Amino acid sequence: MTETTWTSRRCMVFMSDFGRVDGAVSAMYAVADAVSPEIRLYDLTHEIPQFDIWSASYRLMQAMTYWAPGTVFVCVVDPGVGSSRKSIAVLTDSGHLIVTPDNGTITHIARTVGITEIREIEGDKNRLKGSQKSYTFQGRDVYAYTGALLASGKESFEDVGPVLENYVKLDVIAPEIHGKKLFGAIDILDTRYGSLWTNIPESFLEEAGIPVGSRFRVTISHEGLTVYGYELAYCKSFSEVAKGESLVYVNSLLNLAVAVNKGDFASLYRIGTGEGWKIAFELI
Amino acid sequence: MTETTWTSRRCMVFMSDFGRVDGAVSAMYAVADAVSPEIRLYDLTHEIPQFDIWSASYRLMQAMTYWAPGTVFVCVVDPGVGSSRKSIAVLTDSGHLIVTPDNGTITHIARTVGITEIREIEGDKNRLKGSQKSYTFQGRDVYAYTGALLASGKESFEDVGPVLENYVKLDVIAPEIHGKKLFGAIDILDTRYGSLWTNIPESFLEEAGIPVGSRFRVTISHEGLTVYGYELAYCKSFSEVAKGESLVYVNSLLNLAVAVNKGDFASLYRIGTGEGWKIAFELI
Amino acid sequence: MTETTWTSRRCMVFMSDFGRVDGAVSAMYAVADAVSPEIRLYDLTHEIPQFDIWSASYRLMQAMTYWAPGTVFVCVVDPGVGSSRKSIAVLTDSGHLIVTPDNGTITHIARTVGITEIREIEGDKNRLKGSQKSYTFQGRDVYAYTGALLASGKESFEDVGPVLENYVKLDVIAPEIHGKKLFGAIDILDTRYGSLWTNIPESFLEEAGIPVGSRFRVTISHEGLTVYGYELAYCKSFSEVAKGESLVYVNSLLNLAVAVNKGDFASLYRIGTGEGWKIAFELI
Repeated sequence: MTETTWTSRRCMVFMSDFGRVDGAVSAMYAVADAVSPEIRLYDLTHEIPQFDIWSASYRLMQAMTYWAPGTVFVCVVDPGVGSSRKSIAVLTDSGHLIVTPDNGTITHIARTVGITEIREIEGDKNRLKGSQKSYTFQGRDVYAYTGALLASGKESFEDVGPVLENYVKLDVIAPEIHGKKLFGAIDILDTRYGSLWTNIPESFLEEAGIPVGSRFRVTISHEGLTVYGYELAYCKSFSEVAKGESLVYVNSLLNLAVAVNKGDFASLYRIGTGEGWKIAFELI
Repeated sequence: MTETTWTSRRCMVFMSDFGRVDGAVSAMYAVADAVSPEIRLYDLTHEIPQFDIWSASYRLMQAMTYWAPGTVFVCVVDPGVGSSRKSIAVLTDSGHLIVTPDNGTITHIARTVGITEIREIEGDKNRLKGSQKSYTFQGRDVYAYTGALLASGKESFEDVGPVLENYVKLDVIAPEIHGKKLFGAIDILDTRYGSLWTNIPESFLEEAGIPVGSRFRVTISHEGLTVYGYELAYCKSFSEVAKGESLVYVNSLLNLAVAVNKGDFASLYRIGTGEGWKIAFELI
Repeated sequence: MTETTWTSRRCMVFMSDFGRVDGAVSAMYAVADAVSPEIRLYDLTHEIPQFDIWSASYRLMQAMTYWAPGTVFVCVVDPGVGSSRKSIAVLTDSGHLIVTPDNGTITHIARTVGITEIREIEGDKNRLKGSQKSYTFQGRDVYAYTGALLASGKESFEDVGPVLENYVKLDVIAPEIHGKKLFGAIDILDTRYGSLWTNIPESFLEEAGIPVGSRFRVTISHEGLTVYGYELAYCKSFSEVAKGESLVYVNSLLNLAVAVNKGDFASLYRIGTGEGWKIAFELI
């Protein structure tokens, strides 16, 4: 075990599937602010689809690295609350801390950023005083509380609990390149605009020597059945095609994406995401 | 009149039925930040159903006590804006301040936490400068402004206005225990998951000597007509029953609640909340 | 060119059409907090209808002036991202800074508050380090980053780039008064309540000597076709009419507005906003 030298920058970011309709998110903020009024409190999102750990894992990857090292993330999409699933604090190779149930939330981060060390959250010291009778809201009683202890510097990462060697990971399909053909998964939708975000990195295009302005035959399949197959231009920005026209572009995470200019690609062609959905780009 | 010794911790929490679609909440934040940039500004929720004072009162109870004493709450669900209803600042027995129209918003807090003193908000000193011609947005012009004066320490609680002896309360049905039978109201839905949250405290279970693992006959009636009657297990957590199965549990506020594991109980059985809805738990 | 003496108060306010479902807004916050943890970060709204620059321009006017001078606004409703549209930093006559694409977002502010100076945002110094390959998320890479440089005092307004004399403005119809007849546009809906907010200022009522309690014949037309024509009372507040009854009032921005007490005027009478919609108030 190497000695970690993580330093908090007194900044916490919350993610959950709680929505903002009731007082749940506010109660998490309350616990953190009561631990220390010196911590800056922000949101990633609270609109993760209910119990969708995969989306939580993806959204964490999408935003985490833009926050400066030393930021603490509290991520609570927790279908197993009250079960025997563990609670963990995760130090990433980028110097961020993630406080979360051990249920797969760190899958994408583990792949793209890397994990330095995981510790199991243990004991009454990491639980809001007086909350011992509550079993259903660990987001407030354990995760926000422990996150605030860490963010405020009142507890060190080492003091959270013992090192954990194994942790829960979701299945993620790796992207592939074969000559001028690129294959991958549809990771997620850019919800507001219905664009498809794949897990195929822009570096594949460089590797294959494919410049902006090229055209691809784009094929999308679901459970092995082809549901979309058209030729699209690879553009630098949406405005290079007419309104209503589709395009291939590199998204803000530097992965290949497919969209309709001022339209909703996923709705238009009834495309979904996650397991069973595959996409291929063939240079023409 | 006892002398109050309330001390601000420079933290304000906003609740309203404004939503976040337009700039109304932002205007309240703006007024508070302009009074003093030293105040931390947070939300409870702005998604209270429109004009639903009862929900506002319940949500305030749900989250308020997790915030540290000295926090100021600005609660604006105000169907009577512009009418003769009073504006009040309320010191609770827990050391929190609530700035709100006098329309019932403090009903649940009065019952569960207790009220130390109420003062009527009066005069031009408690109104944003230059807002005298605006009658329809007191959330911004009066409540956010007065709340920020209090939270920043620029105005003491005593200086807000005269003590008010009477205030508006909503009708709330008290829970009852008769041997192994518990009766109460369905206070609210856990919106995201459709769980029923009753006003029957866990202490009734202790009083009646009913342990986790017991089974209840749960009966729900609306306007005296029984609309639900099944036997359910009293569980410590959702994961003790199969997906789609119903259960009784103690919620995060330590009251009895009813849910479907990974489902929406209220939608499934068309259960509502508030006046006219009653629930009974009979040990079997 | 006069020398500007703008001073930051270390407060940033974000507006966009991104929603809060994914991590986009969080990434903008992340960039700003990484530039300086000393800046207070707040929202105007992120629920501007997609690509609706006109709504963005209106909402900015609605909330901006309630924030203290020295506040920096980052406004990103940007259908032309990646095109040749410019990026600008705008100093208003009220002492606020707006960082935005040059696409019409400052239309209403220019008319009601006034523009002191506009500078074009240029160069790699105003772009997040390492983001040169990303073309589709300038909200994060350029606007949040530049806004944070300005809000933190790390960059002066003059250093952003050269002065720009011309900028993009949307078409806005001016209100008119002819004796006891007032004409104008329906600027926007008060979304939550469905009230119509016109651009006719209360000062017209004073000019025409029309007191509260008067009655108007209100006529609404769309593309020249009359779609509504009824007599309504001019009230000080909603509670002066019965539930379900319509009224004319002065809204929180001191313009004439039309509403149904505890109802939704726009839905009830199918009224829209923006170009093609006109409203007239004739004293009776």
